[in-house]
Amino acid sequence: MADTIFSKILAGDIPCHRVYEDERVFAFLDIGPLSAGHTLVIPKEPAETLGELSDESAEAIGRVLPRLCRAVLAATGAPAYNVLQNNGALAHQAVMHVHFHIIPRYEDGTGLGIGWPAGSLEGEAGRELAARISAAIDG
Amino acid sequence: MADTIFSKILAGDIPCHRVYEDERVFAFLDIGPLSAGHTLVIPKEPAETLGELSDESAEAIGRVLPRLCRAVLAATGAPAYNVLQNNGALAHQAVMHVHFHIIPRYEDGTGLGIGWPAGSLEGEAGRELAARISAAIDG
Repeated sequence: MADTIFSKILAGDIPCHRVYEDERVFAFLDIGPLSAGHTLVIPKEPAETLGELSDESAEAIGRVLPRLCRAVLAATGAPAYNVLQNNGALAHQAVMHVHFHIIPRYEDGTGLGIGWPAGSLEGEAGRELAARISAAIDG
Repeated sequence: MADTIFSKILAGDIPCHRVYEDERVFAFLDIGPLSAGHTLVIPKEPAETLGELSDESAEAIGRVLPRLCRAVLAATGAPAYNVLQNNGALAHQAVMHVHFHIIPRYEDGTGLGIGWPAGSLEGEAGRELAARISAAIDG
């Protein structure tokens, strides 16, 4: 995998405002925050997308997300928050190293902008699609 | 915690298109999909927000997210995807039981709508904020 700004932060070659670190996980402030307290949580393991990440690193990130969310809320007083993880440039991924955003949402509307053009799922198509996804689960 | 549509799905009182299940985690298709393959991943543990979820349930969800993402991609052929988890009505949470959305993103633009009004982080403010978040981490 090519170097990214995040691998350089992990290597200590680029400074950051560190929030948390353990054996597998690193967290720091986003320097282009959508709102106050916008925090990035990344695996030390190099992987471009969540689907390419090992179970062990994904588990380690999952485990610390609740306490990081609580800490961001405690430090900022934000009343709500989004956790977002983008995969692929088409899906707004800008740095090609897996990262979870913790983005506080405030009463004044600052935070992640969300568009929700919901469709509907037909019963027969839903059954068929669920069966195909379920059959595609590896491991 | 009050019953929700998700606790009723977990109890088998409301049908769903199930994709995956293990001891702690359940996944099924969103009936109001933003795009084809839109999947919800929830803990069996009742918790309203990610910050209120146990480490064990959060770890279990983290561990299965990569394989669920791979399965959704394999079944749909989507070129990109977002993983989103909303906390609080202000942050677009509609069902008050923790859930992660896996939302495929397609070339035609279907998927999650994202607004990204990035600001900037000043060095001194960043240092101070990172220290406050770090100090607020429990456990």
